[in-house]
Amino acid sequence: MAEATTDRARLTVLAGPTAVGKGTVSADVRSRYPDVWLSVSATTRPPRPGEVDGVHYHFLPPEEFARMVSDGEFLEWAVVHGRNSYGTPRGPVEERLAAGRPALLEIDLQGARQVRQTMPEAHFVFLAPPSWEELVRRLEGRGTEDAEERQRRLATAEVEMAAAAEFDHTIINDDVTRATDELVALMGVTTPERTA
Amino acid sequence: MAEATTDRARLTVLAGPTAVGKGTVSADVRSRYPDVWLSVSATTRPPRPGEVDGVHYHFLPPEEFARMVSDGEFLEWAVVHGRNSYGTPRGPVEERLAAGRPALLEIDLQGARQVRQTMPEAHFVFLAPPSWEELVRRLEGRGTEDAEERQRRLATAEVEMAAAAEFDHTIINDDVTRATDELVALMGVTTPERTA
Repeated sequence: MAEATTDRARLTVLAGPTAVGKGTVSADVRSRYPDVWLSVSATTRPPRPGEVDGVHYHFLPPEEFARMVSDGEFLEWAVVHGRNSYGTPRGPVEERLAAGRPALLEIDLQGARQVRQTMPEAHFVFLAPPSWEELVRRLEGRGTEDAEERQRRLATAEVEMAAAAEFDHTIINDDVTRATDELVALMGVTTPERTA
Repeated sequence: MAEATTDRARLTVLAGPTAVGKGTVSADVRSRYPDVWLSVSATTRPPRPGEVDGVHYHFLPPEEFARMVSDGEFLEWAVVHGRNSYGTPRGPVEERLAAGRPALLEIDLQGARQVRQTMPEAHFVFLAPPSWEELVRRLEGRGTEDAEERQRRLATAEVEMAAAAEFDHTIINDDVTRATDELVALMGVTTPERTA
């Protein structure tokens, strides 16, 4: 039985360029490795239909979010598009780590850089596409065919790919199952998939 | 003569909530305190009419911006709205500081938090409105009267105001001239305004 140990565990931060498939890998971790705890973000935006408080997000009133900012209770936070605030509450992460449980935080590049400030002992993993061409293909599947917009998106991807240098480790997302297995192995999770 | 000294100077980072008047204070520093050097951001977005390279921004091709990210040459950088990248090149700041020259960086809250990671010895100054009511007035002068949008903007401002706790010092922007004078005094700039 690979159960929780009493040694303090380490937070693993997973980030990468837009459209690389972070969400898909996280979902795969969630479904196949239930021993890994995934951080749930807090947000001031209202829930969308089907979203469950505490599962998809912690939906907080702005005054509570502001209090947590003021009290330094976020590992990272940001206002996105000037409209809504998002953040990673420190408390639940600390609890899991103190209990020796592996914890995963899937986040954007800027958020990852903030966590390097607030929890420098975390392990920073960059999820990369198998190739530049594949990333371009995924980005192009996402939206308009407007030439200028396409150009911007590729320029952004080029910059985001360069951020790999800021990370401790890179995982190539050539195959979701393989990338997930590599990620949890890096996290020291030796539990095989539950078969019972 | 208050001239450059040979002691290493310290970077001052000025941030604050949306619409508090950071740009106005920076412009006032520029016009009345020419001894203060203001950092110029780099960006991948194309220049707008009237914008001068090296003055308003350093306009960089995405591949050069990406190289600088990869080589760790930014004090902070971000992709904004998924479209354009902005960053603060470390080199020019280091040069001014090494020459003992006061340097000022006006930046958003997330950028300021990144600089706390990359240059922790910097001095972090939060520009605050004279009152919550005044900030609301300034925000409302900015845009649509859509009720939901207004609500979001106030919620964002509430969160941004809470970020003051992350800073070393707060300056109240009740009067631009006074706020500027307080800022440069904090920076140790004793040079009176040039009259000759």
